[in-house]
Amino acid sequence: MSTDTRFYAPLGSVTLGQIARLTGAELHGDEQSLISDVAALSNCTARDIAFFESDGRAKPILNHEPGALVVNEDGRHLVPDDVPVLVAKLPRYVHGQIARAMFQPWHLMPASEQARLPPPAIHESAIIQSGAVVSNGAAIGAGTVVGSNAVIGPGVQIGRHCVIGAGATVFCALLGDHVSLLSGARIGEAGFGVMSGPSGAEDAPHFGRVILQDHVTIGANSCIDRGVFGDTIVGERTKVDNLCQIAHNVVLGRSVVVAAFGGISGSVRVGDGSLLGGRVGIADHVSVGEGVSLAASAGLFRDVAAGETWGGTPAKPIRQWMREVAWLQKQANPKKPG
Amino acid sequence: MSTDTRFYAPLGSVTLGQIARLTGAELHGDEQSLISDVAALSNCTARDIAFFESDGRAKPILNHEPGALVVNEDGRHLVPDDVPVLVAKLPRYVHGQIARAMFQPWHLMPASEQARLPPPAIHESAIIQSGAVVSNGAAIGAGTVVGSNAVIGPGVQIGRHCVIGAGATVFCALLGDHVSLLSGARIGEAGFGVMSGPSGAEDAPHFGRVILQDHVTIGANSCIDRGVFGDTIVGERTKVDNLCQIAHNVVLGRSVVVAAFGGISGSVRVGDGSLLGGRVGIADHVSVGEGVSLAASAGLFRDVAAGETWGGTPAKPIRQWMREVAWLQKQANPKKPG
Amino acid sequence: MSTDTRFYAPLGSVTLGQIARLTGAELHGDEQSLISDVAALSNCTARDIAFFESDGRAKPILNHEPGALVVNEDGRHLVPDDVPVLVAKLPRYVHGQIARAMFQPWHLMPASEQARLPPPAIHESAIIQSGAVVSNGAAIGAGTVVGSNAVIGPGVQIGRHCVIGAGATVFCALLGDHVSLLSGARIGEAGFGVMSGPSGAEDAPHFGRVILQDHVTIGANSCIDRGVFGDTIVGERTKVDNLCQIAHNVVLGRSVVVAAFGGISGSVRVGDGSLLGGRVGIADHVSVGEGVSLAASAGLFRDVAAGETWGGTPAKPIRQWMREVAWLQKQANPKKPG
Repeated sequence: MSTDTRFYAPLGSVTLGQIARLTGAELHGDEQSLISDVAALSNCTARDIAFFESDGRAKPILNHEPGALVVNEDGRHLVPDDVPVLVAKLPRYVHGQIARAMFQPWHLMPASEQARLPPPAIHESAIIQSGAVVSNGAAIGAGTVVGSNAVIGPGVQIGRHCVIGAGATVFCALLGDHVSLLSGARIGEAGFGVMSGPSGAEDAPHFGRVILQDHVTIGANSCIDRGVFGDTIVGERTKVDNLCQIAHNVVLGRSVVVAAFGGISGSVRVGDGSLLGGRVGIADHVSVGEGVSLAASAGLFRDVAAGETWGGTPAKPIRQWMREVAWLQKQANPKKPG
Repeated sequence: MSTDTRFYAPLGSVTLGQIARLTGAELHGDEQSLISDVAALSNCTARDIAFFESDGRAKPILNHEPGALVVNEDGRHLVPDDVPVLVAKLPRYVHGQIARAMFQPWHLMPASEQARLPPPAIHESAIIQSGAVVSNGAAIGAGTVVGSNAVIGPGVQIGRHCVIGAGATVFCALLGDHVSLLSGARIGEAGFGVMSGPSGAEDAPHFGRVILQDHVTIGANSCIDRGVFGDTIVGERTKVDNLCQIAHNVVLGRSVVVAAFGGISGSVRVGDGSLLGGRVGIADHVSVGEGVSLAASAGLFRDVAAGETWGGTPAKPIRQWMREVAWLQKQANPKKPG
Repeated sequence: MSTDTRFYAPLGSVTLGQIARLTGAELHGDEQSLISDVAALSNCTARDIAFFESDGRAKPILNHEPGALVVNEDGRHLVPDDVPVLVAKLPRYVHGQIARAMFQPWHLMPASEQARLPPPAIHESAIIQSGAVVSNGAAIGAGTVVGSNAVIGPGVQIGRHCVIGAGATVFCALLGDHVSLLSGARIGEAGFGVMSGPSGAEDAPHFGRVILQDHVTIGANSCIDRGVFGDTIVGERTKVDNLCQIAHNVVLGRSVVVAAFGGISGSVRVGDGSLLGGRVGIADHVSVGEGVSLAASAGLFRDVAAGETWGGTPAKPIRQWMREVAWLQKQANPKKPG
């Protein structure tokens, strides 16, 4: 994991000692150790700092040796002894403080700072319509149309033959070729992460990206949030209708179809070729296999294996759901002639 | 109740006689009496005119002596004798006519009129990005970022260290400090009020405001409508996800969490610290206590007491709902082995 | 059916021989026959080409003699002998290729091409606010307000005394008088039509329009998609709340009320005076009669006769639905005292 500096201005590495002083966390480790990036626990490497909010039982799952971890008191004894830790009451909040001290989204920085980025690289065959804003560091490929009053944030890379609808906004994102965003689509906003801070609810800062692969279409006024640390990914030829919500760190496979009002919560996986009817909702961290069909209005709270068709709220296999609907109708209306 | 002239240009006081001539209503009162403002029935004072659409039975609930009331024939005898009345077939429509004769939203007036307002007061440390429009009479506090192509309407007051996302629009609103609006958020539009006019359905005009207290976050493409006469209020540190709808005159308490596709109908109250899962809907005038949890997809049509957890559509206490779901599944699938 | 050249630039007529060479389809007809427009099967006339994806059984329903049809192998023998046909594996995709060769939306063409259209005709009493874009070929009537940063596409016709909200976008549309679009409304985007192409999912191109009749109101961030070939129509005084989705080729009657999160799928018909509660969804091609009420959260998959009230998902007559809800509650909670 490394934060993409096309989207996030690096404010400089920090030592563990500096972090301890900034946050008030209790350091167990070398004051001079240098941290140069932030990451989620599972992707944390020697240069990164991550956080671990523990219930005091499960050990942290570490795929690499982390540079340091912010942990709560309950979790401290679960961290391997050789890993530097910063002990804090609100590890996620403290980690956000550290991240903000190390990176800031370019699009929130003043024009004088954004001026340090190279001017946008716009292909001569691209069409930039009236009132559209293309920020420094961005690139627009051949034959792409950026509609009126659309906003392309700093560092955003857009491929060839894309259409960015009027009034759409794109931040912290990489778009392939032949991508279409309809008017008012919102790509790369910070996701919805409410965390506890010392004064109450706080927004979790986001340092990830959105990846829209070739031939992806995103409907009018739909929202694809960027990842907290990693990426939100929409696979090749996946088609998303109007007024859909794709949350942070979701991965949609190829040729997935999401009808209007689809709501995909954080970190959900949807396999290639799955079809989501109108107003389908999927709870966070659920995994949906390839070629799954979810009936309109389904509310899914469990994993679904490849090839299955589910419906209802809470969703279940479609035949079971239809049997329940029919049985209830029959039982509750015993005298109904027709 | 007094209409906020930062948002609504006062077109001048009117006499009851002028009102009668404008609307064709039948006046019972002093032709020379001067009316200087409009209000809802419960907030109507001696300077205001309100309306009372009566079924002929319940008396109007008046907290003050009103300047005048527009009433239908059925309601006339229920109004105290000393209150001037204008009798009309469509009191709400007639009241809207009067209101429009007395006030007009500044943001719908020509530039030559808006030029009468003072230029916007923008703190020197605020960042106004490319294409953003900040109207006359508005104020932008220290350290606030107004994103590209955002629109800040006349008279809007925005505090310190706020972020207004790209393409967001804000009208008739007061924002505290550290408020974040994500891209495409719509703050202060007129709410959805369909009333009967002489030629069919008419939009009820809106003369209220939106108040977003400190540390409020409103997600991308979410909508917070302004009050009809009073305010729509979102309490401190309340966090609203993308694609939510908060209707006119809603009051959300502090640290309320509203997940994506949340829909809060007119005049609903939600207590501090309540949690609304994804796609929760609440019918108008419902009151939700403090610390309530509503499960994802719940459709709530009744009041809920503090601390309870409800789910389902129509929503009921969560255990009851889960019992029904489980019972139905068991009964309808008697031979299911697993 | 003829494509409206105010919205779609005609690229020229083509011969059947040219079409065969462009698409690789197998021509059975006169190479020199000239095709000058595209249409849906039911509206196809002698100057048009349509497509017919057949299951090999049902005959195409032709209301006129078509200029030519693109058919699959299974459907070829069902087409009358005197109709020229182009045989292809993917008729809908091939028809889209032909359509794109004959027409292109003006709003996706470079400024140098749009310059061929006449400058916009803006009435002297209209108000065009800061940052709004009004394209060539468009017309704005007397007393109409176009809000800040709104975008009015090429050829769009807007009547008198309309209000176009800030940041709203309007393409391929005709608006009557007294039409209101709230901020962020998206009028005339291409609808959601996923079709099979040789490399996978493709977006069906759209060549139709949106018609908003007098006194229509469309809420903030709501979307009204344009027709595939014909029109999406919203009847006089119909009122649509925020965050609604009206798909391609829908026809809403007069004085229909659609509350927030209403989702109307493709080609649905809704009769005059019908009321749709919050979060109502209607499946494609469903027909709803006049004066129908659909309860909040209803998911409708079947036609409903005039005057009925339905609720639930799948929706059914409201009494039946309420009986089922009550019966289930009673049966599943037998010992519940209250």
